[in-house]
Amino acid sequence: MSRFLGKQAAALTPYTPGEQPQDRRYIKLNTNECPYPPPPEAAKIIARQDAASYRLYPDPEASALKQKLADRYGVNADQVFVGNGSDEALAFAFFAFFDRGDTISFPDLGYGFYPVYADLCGLNANLIPLRDDYSINPADYLKAKSHILIANPNAPTGLWLEAGQVEDILKADPDRLVMIDEAYVDFAGEGVTSLPLLSRYENLLIIGTFSKSRSFAGLRLGYAISTPEIIAALERIKYSFNPYNVNSLTQVAAIASLEDEAYFRSTVGRVKATRDRVTDSLRGMGLRVLDSGANFVFASHPRLSGKDFYLALREKGILVRCFNHPRTLEFARISIGSDEDMDALLDAIKSF
Amino acid sequence: MSRFLGKQAAALTPYTPGEQPQDRRYIKLNTNECPYPPPPEAAKIIARQDAASYRLYPDPEASALKQKLADRYGVNADQVFVGNGSDEALAFAFFAFFDRGDTISFPDLGYGFYPVYADLCGLNANLIPLRDDYSINPADYLKAKSHILIANPNAPTGLWLEAGQVEDILKADPDRLVMIDEAYVDFAGEGVTSLPLLSRYENLLIIGTFSKSRSFAGLRLGYAISTPEIIAALERIKYSFNPYNVNSLTQVAAIASLEDEAYFRSTVGRVKATRDRVTDSLRGMGLRVLDSGANFVFASHPRLSGKDFYLALREKGILVRCFNHPRTLEFARISIGSDEDMDALLDAIKSF
Repeated sequence: MSRFLGKQAAALTPYTPGEQPQDRRYIKLNTNECPYPPPPEAAKIIARQDAASYRLYPDPEASALKQKLADRYGVNADQVFVGNGSDEALAFAFFAFFDRGDTISFPDLGYGFYPVYADLCGLNANLIPLRDDYSINPADYLKAKSHILIANPNAPTGLWLEAGQVEDILKADPDRLVMIDEAYVDFAGEGVTSLPLLSRYENLLIIGTFSKSRSFAGLRLGYAISTPEIIAALERIKYSFNPYNVNSLTQVAAIASLEDEAYFRSTVGRVKATRDRVTDSLRGMGLRVLDSGANFVFASHPRLSGKDFYLALREKGILVRCFNHPRTLEFARISIGSDEDMDALLDAIKSF
Repeated sequence: MSRFLGKQAAALTPYTPGEQPQDRRYIKLNTNECPYPPPPEAAKIIARQDAASYRLYPDPEASALKQKLADRYGVNADQVFVGNGSDEALAFAFFAFFDRGDTISFPDLGYGFYPVYADLCGLNANLIPLRDDYSINPADYLKAKSHILIANPNAPTGLWLEAGQVEDILKADPDRLVMIDEAYVDFAGEGVTSLPLLSRYENLLIIGTFSKSRSFAGLRLGYAISTPEIIAALERIKYSFNPYNVNSLTQVAAIASLEDEAYFRSTVGRVKATRDRVTDSLRGMGLRVLDSGANFVFASHPRLSGKDFYLALREKGILVRCFNHPRTLEFARISIGSDEDMDALLDAIKSF
């Protein structure tokens, strides 16, 4: 370790992202990527871009993209923030709203980056246990005396709260900021997104990503939607960190993606249909599979630990993800790929 | 201001980037962009990219790109870090090497983001005054009892230290980290870059960018080169912040850029020739122009303040940049554009 490393940095436990093997030999069901490409026009507009424009800085305000997102989500452009992936939007939110020594509450099992950001910002993390069935109990959050962060649907479980349950949390204390990470919400049912609550609650910050349902993982785009004041606070951090955070190509491609709603609905629908079919098949084969409102399933093999299940699938050329969390050692998280990929998965499991 | 804004965030004074007018009516000489596009192959490889690949996360290690940068700069791949612009690399360095309350020394006049990062990380900024002629006095840094950050060439002055002068600073105290921001070094003379010092000093961190000399401002790529230990510390922060920070297209385009050294030399050579010609012309017209090792000149009009000079040029459809720093109120910073753009600038100044 470098002798120049600061004490705060030395104390961090960085996030471990899923494997991204560069040799491409695997069926990749480990990082919740979408099996389908972005809409054709998003790719075409990148290919058509005037190369001379690359020499210019991107619009740091991303005004056109923000307006398009605002139109899509029924808010004003000043209620939208864009980041270099939702990880960046989340990190900026931690820097904007919390001071060292503050407490933030989030589920004891959720997106693995939340405790990392809490560490990075010197916060106390109040981990609220999931129920025994891995669901979030909203009642636990009504009395939490701190700001709150929940992934909805949650990862890696795939379970979700209905918007009405989020509303109870918002209502319980309007002086607490409630951040809802909706990375997977497009794969959930109608009543899950908290978007309709935005007009009624000033303490709601919704985080979203183009990496999953919009197939933009390689292009990097995340966003946040909230009140103009909360968005201005995020911009404040962005302009104290990296003003040109979203590159020019991503801005134009994202606009093209938002303009093809039919394609979006179709690919998301296919992933959901595949997920439901795979869930049924796995349960038929004796696996425990949690209900999922996301583009992955959290599954436990009757004879194999999560780690052994992962290793057995890896042997067959299929990458899934397991976690070290003591409560989920028997589970693996399996992203929903194409029907062909999922058939290969089912065949592999049958062969064990 | 949001009532949820943290005290630390509220105390920040964010960076103000140069104007990025989206209507494109201006001759843009305000953000030091390169007037020439990236090499043809960089654009072609973007256009040729398989759109299906966008759905996959980028290689978080950026291994191929790091290897290419390592080859170009004569170091090992584990001595290279890549970021979403050099601003991100700089920000990560602040988080990696400094604890709240630490002191960092940098010139009282330099890249405007340094005091912002110092604020963001709760550091004491020890501002070391430039000499009356706006040059950096290396002797002032020999005795500074803190880590050091210097832009070389410096911005917005364009003046530079020779590598030997940086070496004196490195040598003075091997327990101080010396960060040299070489954003503009490709436009300087042979003896300016500190790269040859890397093999002899363990306390040197060099930051670079593709935004200026490689025309990648819109594509976002910065890098850092140092010892493997210092690079590992930067990676530690990246994996605690945003692991997928450099998108897939930027990674492949940057490799293509590094493979066309002839194009790089030619465009950099043209910018330098234009800069030298414009410097002579401006001096001939009675302006004070500092020597520049960068792709901009720092110039003072005999009758106009920096602000009025800026406003007069803006009136003529030409954007340059002036700063509020009390020591440079008479100056404007003028980026070096194409010969045609610079002729328009010279004509405009003649007409005042």
